[in-house]
Amino acid sequence: MEKELVFGHQNPDTDAIGTAIAYSYLQNKLGYNTEAVALGEANDETAFALNKFGFEAPRVIKTAANEVKKVMLVDHNEPQQSVADIDQVTVTHVVDHHRIMNFDTSMPLFYLAEPVGCTSTIMLGLYKHFGVEIPQNIAGIMLSAIISDTLLLKSPTTTEKDREAVKELAKIADVDYEKYGLEELKAGTNIASKSEEELIDLDAKSFDLNGKNVRVAQINVVDLPEALERKDAFLKAMSDSANSAGYDLFMLLITNVLDSDSTALVIGSDDALASFEKAFGSVKDSEISLPGVVSRKKQVVPPLTDAFK
Amino acid sequence: MEKELVFGHQNPDTDAIGTAIAYSYLQNKLGYNTEAVALGEANDETAFALNKFGFEAPRVIKTAANEVKKVMLVDHNEPQQSVADIDQVTVTHVVDHHRIMNFDTSMPLFYLAEPVGCTSTIMLGLYKHFGVEIPQNIAGIMLSAIISDTLLLKSPTTTEKDREAVKELAKIADVDYEKYGLEELKAGTNIASKSEEELIDLDAKSFDLNGKNVRVAQINVVDLPEALERKDAFLKAMSDSANSAGYDLFMLLITNVLDSDSTALVIGSDDALASFEKAFGSVKDSEISLPGVVSRKKQVVPPLTDAFK
Repeated sequence: MEKELVFGHQNPDTDAIGTAIAYSYLQNKLGYNTEAVALGEANDETAFALNKFGFEAPRVIKTAANEVKKVMLVDHNEPQQSVADIDQVTVTHVVDHHRIMNFDTSMPLFYLAEPVGCTSTIMLGLYKHFGVEIPQNIAGIMLSAIISDTLLLKSPTTTEKDREAVKELAKIADVDYEKYGLEELKAGTNIASKSEEELIDLDAKSFDLNGKNVRVAQINVVDLPEALERKDAFLKAMSDSANSAGYDLFMLLITNVLDSDSTALVIGSDDALASFEKAFGSVKDSEISLPGVVSRKKQVVPPLTDAFK
Repeated sequence: MEKELVFGHQNPDTDAIGTAIAYSYLQNKLGYNTEAVALGEANDETAFALNKFGFEAPRVIKTAANEVKKVMLVDHNEPQQSVADIDQVTVTHVVDHHRIMNFDTSMPLFYLAEPVGCTSTIMLGLYKHFGVEIPQNIAGIMLSAIISDTLLLKSPTTTEKDREAVKELAKIADVDYEKYGLEELKAGTNIASKSEEELIDLDAKSFDLNGKNVRVAQINVVDLPEALERKDAFLKAMSDSANSAGYDLFMLLITNVLDSDSTALVIGSDDALASFEKAFGSVKDSEISLPGVVSRKKQVVPPLTDAFK
């Protein structure tokens, strides 16, 4: 059977990489010929999880059409978050937990989205549906994905299905999910070793909001004041990035994974900043405190989408 | 719980109406508060199936926001095929078997699409997934939907899953599906009692093909030459419709449900007709024979989409 690639979004997180691995394994069991790849290097947290469960990081690709005709997407659907030449290949399957935007196909396809905290929670349902047994290491990487996306079940995106999935997968993976989960999240908070340019691109997504090009990056930390000591350097990196990529707004969400609060740094055009303030209140010195905000998908993108209308 | 409406596409067929009824029943069993409605009157074939299994035709609506905030879609996703004010309501669920196009949301949702012949085939899977028993009359209307969409399993859109679903649903509905299926299809072929204006709008869908507004209508008959005696009147009705609605191309697919062949009548701008001919070959006197073509979704829209690129 003709080979297909399976991958998550650009600037991959543990869901993008972990669920791609899990979906590729499932589809191969069902008779497809697939390979899980990634649209970027694994971040520290993902590398920690991959290592814990004995996986190599997937091969990194920038384009797909040079090697396959068909692809399967996990954890995203918006073209600008996908492989650069997504319009040159046929998407046959999508498993995702985000809004659907600018995703157009010429042919029917398999598409499963559920409004849950993590794509791996949906993936667990697919394994059950097809009656495929989940190996211990696959369960471990799926568990890691849910811990990552839900900040250990503390994000408001967390649903009852995510909680049940974590318990079920932790049992198969044979780990104490609370202990392992904190280790995993902390592995992703070491910002000291990285430049501001790297940090603002590590987990960043672009959104087309009513014609405006909006970039929302997020970093996890255990000490907010320490991170904010680098504020001026962050702002310079964001400004440089916005100028070269043409972003109308660049927001960096700095999230304390221990207490689930965030502070955001924001720059942009006057127009775009006015829309931002309509959504979140006034920004002082390019900074705004956002207590309780940890989810880009549920707490940032929907109010921004409304404000940019 | 807040009420939601469940409906299929405009100019509803047996899948649009039958699967809406089946999905509303399932969701109500799962604790939602839904009502199945339709975006138009039931056609003759659908009326025959509803009557056979003891259903009233669903209430017809043109707008949704005046009565609900949330809706569930079956058998379509493209906004121009949906309720007129689809942008004023939140889509919480979609179950469909078509390509995805111009379907944008601001929030995550439940979306299940599979490349099978009929939405009711997917619906059968959802009933099983949730462990909800299918009543005899619901099985009957789902069976009718699959017979309609697959032309009694003869359309090239038919998959193994559709065949299995038909057998399973026929058993629950307690009907001989081959005998009943022919009766149902024939009930939809009585074109003598309808005007050309009615016939070209009965099962018609609009598609945005690279900026061109393309209308594809289909009627089922048992005698092609008899239908073509009305060719001039069909062409006039199509031309009037195209002028008033601004269609760049209007294609009427006249399908013989007994031998699965079609003849198409086509009008449009020079540009659009050139694209059409690129896909299907030359049109003579606004007419073209399309042997073996019965599926708008699989055999008409994809080649047109490519040709309009």
